[in-house]
Amino acid sequence: MITNYKSVFLNYLEERVQVKEPKNLYQPITYILSLGGKKLRPILTLVAADIFGGNHKKALDAALAVEVFHNFTLIHDDIMDAAPLRRGNQTVHEKWDANTGILSGDAMLILAYQYLENYDATTFKKLTSIFSKTALEVCEGQQMDIDFETRNNVTIEEYLKMISLKTSVLVAAALKMGAVIANASKEDIKLIYDFGLNLGIAFQLQDDYLDAFGNPETFGKQVGGDIIENKKTYLYIKAIELVAASEKEILSNLFNTEQQELPQKIEKAKAIFNSSGATKKTKEAIKNYTQKAFDVLESISIASEKKQLLKEFGESLMNRNV
Amino acid sequence: MITNYKSVFLNYLEERVQVKEPKNLYQPITYILSLGGKKLRPILTLVAADIFGGNHKKALDAALAVEVFHNFTLIHDDIMDAAPLRRGNQTVHEKWDANTGILSGDAMLILAYQYLENYDATTFKKLTSIFSKTALEVCEGQQMDIDFETRNNVTIEEYLKMISLKTSVLVAAALKMGAVIANASKEDIKLIYDFGLNLGIAFQLQDDYLDAFGNPETFGKQVGGDIIENKKTYLYIKAIELVAASEKEILSNLFNTEQQELPQKIEKAKAIFNSSGATKKTKEAIKNYTQKAFDVLESISIASEKKQLLKEFGESLMNRNV
Repeated sequence: MITNYKSVFLNYLEERVQVKEPKNLYQPITYILSLGGKKLRPILTLVAADIFGGNHKKALDAALAVEVFHNFTLIHDDIMDAAPLRRGNQTVHEKWDANTGILSGDAMLILAYQYLENYDATTFKKLTSIFSKTALEVCEGQQMDIDFETRNNVTIEEYLKMISLKTSVLVAAALKMGAVIANASKEDIKLIYDFGLNLGIAFQLQDDYLDAFGNPETFGKQVGGDIIENKKTYLYIKAIELVAASEKEILSNLFNTEQQELPQKIEKAKAIFNSSGATKKTKEAIKNYTQKAFDVLESISIASEKKQLLKEFGESLMNRNV
Repeated sequence: MITNYKSVFLNYLEERVQVKEPKNLYQPITYILSLGGKKLRPILTLVAADIFGGNHKKALDAALAVEVFHNFTLIHDDIMDAAPLRRGNQTVHEKWDANTGILSGDAMLILAYQYLENYDATTFKKLTSIFSKTALEVCEGQQMDIDFETRNNVTIEEYLKMISLKTSVLVAAALKMGAVIANASKEDIKLIYDFGLNLGIAFQLQDDYLDAFGNPETFGKQVGGDIIENKKTYLYIKAIELVAASEKEILSNLFNTEQQELPQKIEKAKAIFNSSGATKKTKEAIKNYTQKAFDVLESISIASEKKQLLKEFGESLMNRNV
């Protein structure tokens, strides 16, 4: 079922997003969109439209807006992180340059808004308002993420707030937009958004886990990238919370010193994540947020076989290795 | 009259745009917006609303959207151009860093859309559609500008197309949005847009002229900045068209070699602009496009004293030294 939504979406994307003049502006856009990826967010928009009794075909433009927006954030984030790889391929600023990444990213943000113009004025305003609120929150989350790099006292609570803004709100908004297009009730729109928020947090924690413990053959990005960049992920913050004072200093120094032998740094950090119990706690948190999402799902007023579709999709996300 | 519009707008801007958390995201936004500047575009939105029988107060949010969008493009363009100064002050990427400029700029683009949410759904969709089309054209113009830097055969026609996209469409859209808010007729909306297109071209050609021949005391930016960056402005392209073969090579080499003594480079280029007649031709073009704008203005179905306001404003722009 989910693979059907994905191929319907990919066909639509190919039809709608094409290279125009000036080519140097539009080629990076089709490039990043063609790199694969799970297409999690647009699929959720389509699924949400269907399960609330709408038609996923009517949700294709909103799904496109969400996916193009998401890829805009990837291009700009990759510049800010100086990341060399995205989905196993060169990032846009590596393949072209930073200026190209900035400008093509800007164009994608605008294109995302334009795709919504196919909706009637009332729906357009609802969708655009959800979209802008979400997009601004994503920027706030990215700023918090940057701020955290130079702070040593980030709490689990702050971290969850940051990933909620940077990642979960877009997952939640993707679902909400589908529900709005299907004219779902206010109550259901709120619930599907909350489902998305919790699923999004579980998804990001899983990302943190895979960034350290994923399989380099299949992960697509550089395994250990977060450790190299001194990112205080859930794993790190939990480890700092849990380890004995002696190890705490080792871990803290590891994440505050530049110019180390990178493979050694990664191994040391992972060893402490494991020995401290932070790895286990992270896996538990992933399970807990997934369960929270499923609990919210239960209270939505739709047939249980429709919930099953979202539940299976959620489970597959939490068992992924990419 | 125009100064009234400016102070009404500045008061509204100060009220609406405030620093929130995370501060590092919002501080650069209030910084760039506080640097002064002519506020040409938002004033045009307010004036347009009034002259078509609307109320400029209803156009304040659209004016804000236009101004915030314009300043977003300044932040990102300044990163791409590695420009040190903007309105006589440090650029955002100089005062903070490039990453801050990228992210705060992104947030401004989104904020611009959000300001339009105060309009009813039908007006909102009209304004947002004009805004998105324009914003994308500005990106295309910026890309053409970048592409031109590494090309030696840019024609006057291509150059006019580029500045039309990069600058004029936003001036035109600023007026159009004001006219839409005032419920002007389709025909008048088209005419005021055309007035803006021509005025915008005249304005940009004046910018080119001032960049080379402006007074360093009052100009705000680095005088000769375009020459330093090898920008093929109207002055350069006209000069290449007009000079004898021997001087053509000197000028072309001047604009294709890095690492020159900058003050000498600027003086040499300006001397050829003058001797070739390119300076004179540029001044004529400024006059012609201004006149074209005024001719379009004549055919708009509003009282002549209202036209007079726009005409005086246009004339003051063409006689400015900043």
